Amino acid sequence: MKLDLALVHYPVLNKNNEIIGSAVTNLDIHDIARVSRTYGVDNYYIVTPIVDQQQLVGQIIDHWQKGHGAQYNPDRKEAFSIIQSVDDLSSLYEIVEEKWQQKPMVLATSARRNANTIEIDKVRKLLADDVPVLLLFGTGWGLAPEVLSQVDGALPPVGSEQDYNHLSVRSAASIMLDRLLGV
Amino acid sequence: MKLDLALVHYPVLNKNNEIIGSAVTNLDIHDIARVSRTYGVDNYYIVTPIVDQQQLVGQIIDHWQKGHGAQYNPDRKEAFSIIQSVDDLSSLYEIVEEKWQQKPMVLATSARRNANTIEIDKVRKLLADDVPVLLLFGTGWGLAPEVLSQVDGALPPVGSEQDYNHLSVRSAASIMLDRLLGV
Repeated sequence: MKLDLALVHYPVLNKNNEIIGSAVTNLDIHDIARVSRTYGVDNYYIVTPIVDQQQLVGQIIDHWQKGHGAQYNPDRKEAFSIIQSVDDLSSLYEIVEEKWQQKPMVLATSARRNANTIEIDKVRKLLADDVPVLLLFGTGWGLAPEVLSQVDGALPPVGSEQDYNHLSVRSAASIMLDRLLGV
Repeated sequence: MKLDLALVHYPVLNKNNEIIGSAVTNLDIHDIARVSRTYGVDNYYIVTPIVDQQQLVGQIIDHWQKGHGAQYNPDRKEAFSIIQSVDDLSSLYEIVEEKWQQKPMVLATSARRNANTIEIDKVRKLLADDVPVLLLFGTGWGLAPEVLSQVDGALPPVGSEQDYNHLSVRSAASIMLDRLLGV
């Protein structure tokens, strides 16, 4: 399987629909690394152009990879081994293409249904056929329109038939990986 | 539908398999309230016998229900409206039975498969038939054996075919609700 996941901190929307760079959240690193490792994701990329934030991510990874955390919790060390920090989306696309020696199919996720939606069953089949797939998750109020318009497709929103759909990105990523890879 | 969810902080296991009371984590409150509301859970109960911790939960709820948070984020206010703090499991069982005027089916969750496992499809049918169901999630390293031995059944673990399964309780609760109620 050739699946990667990226958590995007820029460009994303804030609650007023403006494009911003969001701050890295510690538990986004932990929870999404753990669920990614549990479902067999190859790399979990944290995308932020802000140098301070990249340093913070580096420090957190080091703590759990080499510091006290590595002894305290070897399972967490293993989950953190798949994390990579990346400057921006164009670098991300280059890195992933270089890794697989092939352009990945880039799929966005969103709380709303998009025009270019690709159904879950189709993506399950692509993964089973070893097609490289890169999933993008947005922080804040979601991926900016300029990202959504450039991807190869969008996954259908997760959730139920309720009129309310406001999941954390940690929950959304967990549910999406289970829909794509759960047994 | 008559589904409730409880996040148990005592009795749970620590990494050395000892029974402890765990500390409340702020993002457990947020993430599990949001996914619970998104999937139509009636109440999200936070079970802790520690008075300081109950006060902390109360303060966090107040901030998002009545304080600045309620204006800042009305969606979060709505998610938090289903949260209740409860002292212990016996009080929890009484409160839920009183609410539905009927004993709920109490189902534990765990990262391992238990002897009394009830399959997802069967629980989906119970929920569709309006049988009250109460899901228990453990913090720390999971629910204590004394809890697992007293419930009506256990749900199968979520995850994939990987040899690694170390999800946060936030991820596990999100995936389980999607398996039970996702469309």
